Amino acid sequence: MTERQFIPMIRAAREGCQERIRGGFPLQEHWSILRPAMADPLAISLPRLRTHLEALSRFGRNPDGRGITRSCWSGAHEEARAWLLGRMKEAGLSTWVDEAGNTFGRLGNGGPSVITGSHIDTVPNGGPLDGALGVLAGLECLQTIHESGARTRLPLMVVAWSDEEGRYAGLFGSSAFAGKLDAKQIPRLRAADGERLVDAMARAGFNAYDAPKARCNPKTLSAYVELHIEQGPHLETAKIPIGVVEGIVGNRRNWVTFRGQSDHAGTTPMAWRRDAFMAAAEYALRARRLIITKGSGRSVTNFGRVEVGPGVSNIVPDRCVLLHEMRELEPRVLARLERQCLALARSVAKKWRLKVTVDPISKSQPARCAPRVMRCVEAAAAGLKLKVKRMPSGAGHDAQNLALVTDSGMLFIPSQGGRSHRPDETSDWRAIERGANTLLYTLLELAG
Amino acid sequence: MTERQFIPMIRAAREGCQERIRGGFPLQEHWSILRPAMADPLAISLPRLRTHLEALSRFGRNPDGRGITRSCWSGAHEEARAWLLGRMKEAGLSTWVDEAGNTFGRLGNGGPSVITGSHIDTVPNGGPLDGALGVLAGLECLQTIHESGARTRLPLMVVAWSDEEGRYAGLFGSSAFAGKLDAKQIPRLRAADGERLVDAMARAGFNAYDAPKARCNPKTLSAYVELHIEQGPHLETAKIPIGVVEGIVGNRRNWVTFRGQSDHAGTTPMAWRRDAFMAAAEYALRARRLIITKGSGRSVTNFGRVEVGPGVSNIVPDRCVLLHEMRELEPRVLARLERQCLALARSVAKKWRLKVTVDPISKSQPARCAPRVMRCVEAAAAGLKLKVKRMPSGAGHDAQNLALVTDSGMLFIPSQGGRSHRPDETSDWRAIERGANTLLYTLLELAG
Repeated sequence: MTERQFIPMIRAAREGCQERIRGGFPLQEHWSILRPAMADPLAISLPRLRTHLEALSRFGRNPDGRGITRSCWSGAHEEARAWLLGRMKEAGLSTWVDEAGNTFGRLGNGGPSVITGSHIDTVPNGGPLDGALGVLAGLECLQTIHESGARTRLPLMVVAWSDEEGRYAGLFGSSAFAGKLDAKQIPRLRAADGERLVDAMARAGFNAYDAPKARCNPKTLSAYVELHIEQGPHLETAKIPIGVVEGIVGNRRNWVTFRGQSDHAGTTPMAWRRDAFMAAAEYALRARRLIITKGSGRSVTNFGRVEVGPGVSNIVPDRCVLLHEMRELEPRVLARLERQCLALARSVAKKWRLKVTVDPISKSQPARCAPRVMRCVEAAAAGLKLKVKRMPSGAGHDAQNLALVTDSGMLFIPSQGGRSHRPDETSDWRAIERGANTLLYTLLELAG
Repeated sequence: MTERQFIPMIRAAREGCQERIRGGFPLQEHWSILRPAMADPLAISLPRLRTHLEALSRFGRNPDGRGITRSCWSGAHEEARAWLLGRMKEAGLSTWVDEAGNTFGRLGNGGPSVITGSHIDTVPNGGPLDGALGVLAGLECLQTIHESGARTRLPLMVVAWSDEEGRYAGLFGSSAFAGKLDAKQIPRLRAADGERLVDAMARAGFNAYDAPKARCNPKTLSAYVELHIEQGPHLETAKIPIGVVEGIVGNRRNWVTFRGQSDHAGTTPMAWRRDAFMAAAEYALRARRLIITKGSGRSVTNFGRVEVGPGVSNIVPDRCVLLHEMRELEPRVLARLERQCLALARSVAKKWRLKVTVDPISKSQPARCAPRVMRCVEAAAAGLKLKVKRMPSGAGHDAQNLALVTDSGMLFIPSQGGRSHRPDETSDWRAIERGANTLLYTLLELAG
């Protein structure tokens, strides 16, 4: 199939859609263009998607309801990758895995591709939808299109990006694809438990030093769109089925280390102590307050790891290390909050007569979604008579790396209770079906 | 030697001393009673004590200046015990080890004994004086008395009590000796790393289940006195060489566990979070303030261990466990502070919409030192023209268990910089000599 081999009906639909987008009309009528040519309007198979989601959730499932642990490069992850390649082939896609471990399935040839996808790794004790939904709904869309006999003007691809969750390095696969992987960092990348990326990739049959070769040629890309659960409560609260992502927040992750003095906790007068934990506790409370009151109103912060040394009942802590993370969509606000937190850390340390150091772990810049992709998602949702809401993504996603090399965007479906990164992370099957169908028509819009 | 075989000179000295104590006169002249009968007044050998302290400090010494790790029942501790038994025999003492691993050396027979001692185990990365000084200065006193040819009316004993520092259970050996060891608890006692006491004792050749057999017959005891470094800054700051301990503070050690909800740290609005670490931070700061402002003025508190779960950068902590310790000499004040902290924990948990549980780990009641022992220490110091200061002990000591079965007391010498439980814990040799000589004359007073 070449770029010129497309189904005139789809092309007509797409052009009609674009007309209507320009004119600002709702697109419900648009889909009626499709209907006369088909027995039914094109729609994904929820039973098949559900079977696939349930099958994937068995790789890395922990006993006793403790969710799914499917870290990238682990045995469970590599088994899931093999299973996914099998499903892609079954769906009629051509498949390959690149040097960074990104797993691709393609429908069609030539011309710049329209890509969808997400990731199949999970956080420890994670849920069944984060990442998995975007990959399997993308696969379902391509399979639906393929089985319908329809052909799009542009080729369609579905991808599972490596190590989105960052056991070794967050958004690793899409960073490599976007050409922002620093080859010098590769030997230094380690998991929290000390395991080196180089060793984990070797165990899975990859040479980590080759990962930068996964860099894409941006000319071969037309657009990227990713379906994901919201992982927050906004859509559910507002009873809106589809979130149109405006941008992905940037983040700062720093180690904030307070160093005081270890003293006997029974014999040292309170006023003499230089207690690193007390300073850290005050810093954490005040940094939270600062980010709530001086941020954008949507700025968030977290202290996910706290370590106190020497860690003995009767010794005053001489060391407390906080992993301090903050996120914000507006780059200037994010930079200002980081500076204000640094000043706060120094002021708190001085008050408690301690030393403090702030060491960056990682940072990402906020990414804006492409207006073209946002409009196509809105058009697709309108065609399905689904309400939408524009919103930022508070979580990082591979779409932010894709934004560096192509028009990139995302759509969200509600998360039950806003829960994610937990065993009870879920949505409901109707919401998943709505999201997958919106993705289907978004891809048709983009690939025409 | 029977109870009646004593040196009339010492007896006369003792009686003179007691007369003077009753009359409230300084006792300087008292020691002149000894002088005519001896070439020099009785005094310990600082070079020999120093040699012994330096020798003991080599058992369990860590490389690179990281202090001494000589946990009870460890290989290093058992080697140190064997060395100590050798030194006791060399000093002319009869020796034995009881079922709780307490190591005894005795000079003389019959009658209720006057005991001195401390412990030879250390905290991890501890210093050379905590415990070691009290045992080796006690040994030095008995050796000095033995070599002088003097005989006391009552037998003298020096003891190294097991596991004072509490790798498995604080004050273990003296608890067994005082008959307060709960046999049912023995199989449950574990180190922080999970190792069972039963296994550690078996490795060292002891049957932990026999430890309660170490219970003493209080009728065989006359008094207990323990020399220790202060482990705080009061004596050094006041330039006073001898602290006369009025009592040993009681303590409460509780696990305070806040339980909230783990959520995605990027997507959950700040106002929705139930962050266990934030509640714990607020509790720690406010409990510290409460104990400073509502305590006795000498009450102290510490949070030596802090654990946050699940411990991941981008997940809101759903669990934070604090090891909360508080100490105070006045039993009613201690009980009130514990109640107020419990109420505070509940109020903070409510504010953050969390649950909190407070689980006791250990508690000890404050122990008052015997006025008779305090007066004998003061008399001995006065005889040596040393200033004294009455003070509480902020640290727990075996003397508090001995207070349950006999007249018990302690004397302190200054700690440099108030430092203890650290590699740089030290005193100076003149201070050590003054302390050991004060102990010597205190023992002579008590055993007369």
